[in-house]
Amino acid sequence: MPPDSRTRLPGVAAQPPAETTGFVFNHTMLRVKDIAASLDFYTRVLGFRLVETRDFPDAAFSLYFLAHVSAATQIPEDPAERQRWLAGIPGVLELTHNHGTERQQGPVYHDGNSEPRGFGHICVSVPDLEAACARFEELGVTFQKRLHDGRMKNLAFIKDPDGYWVEIISHR
Amino acid sequence: MPPDSRTRLPGVAAQPPAETTGFVFNHTMLRVKDIAASLDFYTRVLGFRLVETRDFPDAAFSLYFLAHVSAATQIPEDPAERQRWLAGIPGVLELTHNHGTERQQGPVYHDGNSEPRGFGHICVSVPDLEAACARFEELGVTFQKRLHDGRMKNLAFIKDPDGYWVEIISHR
Repeated sequence: MPPDSRTRLPGVAAQPPAETTGFVFNHTMLRVKDIAASLDFYTRVLGFRLVETRDFPDAAFSLYFLAHVSAATQIPEDPAERQRWLAGIPGVLELTHNHGTERQQGPVYHDGNSEPRGFGHICVSVPDLEAACARFEELGVTFQKRLHDGRMKNLAFIKDPDGYWVEIISHR
Repeated sequence: MPPDSRTRLPGVAAQPPAETTGFVFNHTMLRVKDIAASLDFYTRVLGFRLVETRDFPDAAFSLYFLAHVSAATQIPEDPAERQRWLAGIPGVLELTHNHGTERQQGPVYHDGNSEPRGFGHICVSVPDLEAACARFEELGVTFQKRLHDGRMKNLAFIKDPDGYWVEIISHR
C-alpha cells in the first residue's frame, strides 16, 4: 500500500503533529500470577533481560521491566539515569505482580481472547522461525498455534505462564 | 539495583540464551471497535504513523500496524520488504478491527482493568510531560489520571477510544 493511500484512510493524520516529536511507544503492561514463572519464561525462553524492578510493599505489588537488550548495551546503574534510559526505548514489557497471587489456585488473570475480549497478544519476532519453534517444543512451551497448523504458515502462537498469547514471526 | 541482584531474582536467566539472539519484542495487539476513531487517536493525538494495513474480507477483519517512525525514516514500499522491516522493529502497535463492531451500541471491548483483569495498559513516553498533558487537555482527551492527581506526580493515564489505558511518562 503506497503511503498516499495509507494517509487517506478515515481518521489517519497526514503527518504526525510536530507536538508529538520524540514520542516513544515504550511499554506494555501485563499482570502476572507467579513472577518467578514469568521471569523464567521471558528471560530464558524469550531472551528478555530484566532491566529494572520497583517494589511497592505498602500496596503489595512489584513491577518488573524487561527488554531485549544486547550484551553490548550498557544499562545505566544510576537509578535516575536508568529510569530515563528505560523510558526512552521502545519494546519494553512491564510485568505487574500483585503479591500473593502465586498462592491462588488456578489461573488468576484473563488473556483477553475469550469474552470479554480486548487485548489480544504480544509478538516477538525472531531471525529463524523454524529454529525458534523447534526450540520452544524442546523447552516444553505450550503452543496456541503451531507453525504448520491452520492456514497461516508463517506464524506461531505460544502461551506464557498466565496463558497470554505470544505471537512468533520472522523478521528475516 | 545492580545487575547482579537483578539476575539473582528467582526465575531470571543469568544471560539471555544464545538461541534468543536477535529476538525483538515487536508488537502488542489490541482489538478496537471503531477503527477510524482509533486511527485518529493514535496518529493525531499520539503521533504514531500507520505503516501497514492487512484486510481479510472473508473473515471480516482488518489489521492496522502503527509505529513511531520519524519523517526521515524510509518505510519500504515493496510489500515483502516492508513486512520484514516492520517485523524487525520494536514498538509496533497492532489494531484489529472486526468489521461492523463500529455499529454496535456502547463499548465493545474490555480494557483489562476491571474484572476479569489481565492486560493493564500501554505506555507512550514523551520529551515534555507537562506540555504533552496540556495538549491532551486541549484536544479533549479523556484522562484516567491527570499528572497532578494522586500520589504519583510523574505520570498520567489517558484513555483511547475503546477505554484502553495509555500511560504517559517522561523520557527526559
